[in-house]
Amino acid sequence: MNVTAIQNQQYRLAARPFGMPKPSDWQVTVEALRDITDGEIVVQTLYLSLDPAMRGWMNEGKSYIRPVAIGEVMRAGGIGRVIASKSPKFAVGDSVCGGIGVQSYWVGAADDKTSGFYKVDSTLAPLPKYLNALGMPGMTGYFGLLEVGQPKAGETVVVSGASGAVGQTVGQVAKHKGCRVVGIAGGREKCDFVVNELGFDACIDYKNDALKDGLKQHCPNGVDVYFDNVGGEILDTVLTQINLKARIIICGAISQYNNTSTVKGPANYLALLVNRARMEGIVVFDYADRYQVGMKEMAKWMKEGSFKTREDIVFGLEKFPETLLMLFEGKNFGKLVLQVAQE
Amino acid sequence: MNVTAIQNQQYRLAARPFGMPKPSDWQVTVEALRDITDGEIVVQTLYLSLDPAMRGWMNEGKSYIRPVAIGEVMRAGGIGRVIASKSPKFAVGDSVCGGIGVQSYWVGAADDKTSGFYKVDSTLAPLPKYLNALGMPGMTGYFGLLEVGQPKAGETVVVSGASGAVGQTVGQVAKHKGCRVVGIAGGREKCDFVVNELGFDACIDYKNDALKDGLKQHCPNGVDVYFDNVGGEILDTVLTQINLKARIIICGAISQYNNTSTVKGPANYLALLVNRARMEGIVVFDYADRYQVGMKEMAKWMKEGSFKTREDIVFGLEKFPETLLMLFEGKNFGKLVLQVAQE
Repeated sequence: MNVTAIQNQQYRLAARPFGMPKPSDWQVTVEALRDITDGEIVVQTLYLSLDPAMRGWMNEGKSYIRPVAIGEVMRAGGIGRVIASKSPKFAVGDSVCGGIGVQSYWVGAADDKTSGFYKVDSTLAPLPKYLNALGMPGMTGYFGLLEVGQPKAGETVVVSGASGAVGQTVGQVAKHKGCRVVGIAGGREKCDFVVNELGFDACIDYKNDALKDGLKQHCPNGVDVYFDNVGGEILDTVLTQINLKARIIICGAISQYNNTSTVKGPANYLALLVNRARMEGIVVFDYADRYQVGMKEMAKWMKEGSFKTREDIVFGLEKFPETLLMLFEGKNFGKLVLQVAQE
Repeated sequence: MNVTAIQNQQYRLAARPFGMPKPSDWQVTVEALRDITDGEIVVQTLYLSLDPAMRGWMNEGKSYIRPVAIGEVMRAGGIGRVIASKSPKFAVGDSVCGGIGVQSYWVGAADDKTSGFYKVDSTLAPLPKYLNALGMPGMTGYFGLLEVGQPKAGETVVVSGASGAVGQTVGQVAKHKGCRVVGIAGGREKCDFVVNELGFDACIDYKNDALKDGLKQHCPNGVDVYFDNVGGEILDTVLTQINLKARIIICGAISQYNNTSTVKGPANYLALLVNRARMEGIVVFDYADRYQVGMKEMAKWMKEGSFKTREDIVFGLEKFPETLLMLFEGKNFGKLVLQVAQE
């Protein structure tokens, strides 16, 4: 296959956003693919995972991963199909998951460490599931809850961003471990989904109901584990309801990522002192050597019908800038996925 | 002994302070002691421990201990001498440590659970030491550092309020465990003391030097354990320098106790996420069944001359209101003790 006839469209970081990313923070480039040499592959992008963490990668400064450079193709995990291969590792037609970037094609060494491509089986699960519970968000929720949260049967687990990719996993894993699970989500529709479809015990609509009252009502024995995806006022309010020796997992702070001034720190953090409680961060990569354990258990539950996930799929690479913003406006309903090409 | 001829002066909480406690927040009462009955004792107050935590007890609302009620004698730990006894537990002349309250005498059952009096030996150590390293501040520093902080030899431990009662203990215990120890204190004199007298590796004068620069200079390998007694800007700055898997012990937040608006939460708390670090509260009472272990080890070091403590002793019960404020103004130099009577 002569790939040099194929045009690759790419979203590059043009400027570091101040607050919410603007269209002018992106530069769209189109370039012909280059020929591949021994050991290399070409992957056509099918699905891109849009995640809150991407906002952090656009900032300068030290984090758990290096920032995307100005002019560089925006980092994104995704699923693609191998359309050309000079590597024994992947055959043409294979579906692969890895760091594709926001572009229609990826070209490089099959064993490229940064992209870390691995094969996924589209006959076992629909491909977008590999960006959800069977991918990074799922691993984040699974290991964050179990390893950092250490939930015990009978305890009360609260999770914010409950209908999002990580939240869906956290709540359902906690249910499987015998916990009472209370979600926090924005809007009645999302709340109904996590209760009726995912089996949470309750869900508080923070946009329309008083969160503190909701927590008191639905967590009559207090909060033992809180999995925080949002930060801000919600974190502060949950802190008022924690139990002795509570565990708070800091996974993200989507409410704070586009702040133009400083982040709002948790004013009620002294609840940690009063309750001898713990607040601890989680980064999914630390559990890479055990992803298979988590995937296996969740895949089993999926097969049994006791673990469901929902994706919110938007079509079109050109929709990338506006679709990313949906995350920060709470407009996505389920794991947000950008579909770039038909399977 | 006819104790009914003795007048007992008491400081009662007259009003819940708004911000820094004012003289009018106290009511001074004088009443004759009552006769004691079987099982009771009279304790004459010698020394009272003045601690930052007292400010919290003056507020309404749920905490790790019930608030002092309006009209109630202010809660305080202290050391006194038994001057009358109808209990086999204590003899006249015994020195005892317990919850005396801000008053010149305490009357009640020898086995009163709230006061929890126990004998201390003035021949083994000067009595004020039992309010310092051999008392609650010492136990707080010892168990907070070792149990929550889990320091390993070679790691860097930073402690704020370094010349205070808890800070002195934390730093010296950490040195004994083979750590690099960097203090944070207000003023050159306090910094010189913790380095030259207590053997800290360095101390940063936050009032006169740039804390962040100081941390970078004195913690070239980053911060593994941070023992926080102060909160506010200092906590936020230390968070910028923590290492992967760092442990932050939340012991207090003296900078925030007199805030009239909300507490300033740690805006840099997402450093916990980036570094998979942990922030955890400590309340000393949780370790009550092991106080003897800590006291024994520190007493041994004291005897060997490798563990020193300093008290700042102010004389006169009538000085209580103004002396308490010294804590919040950083004016005390060493463990703050109010001496109420000559030994």
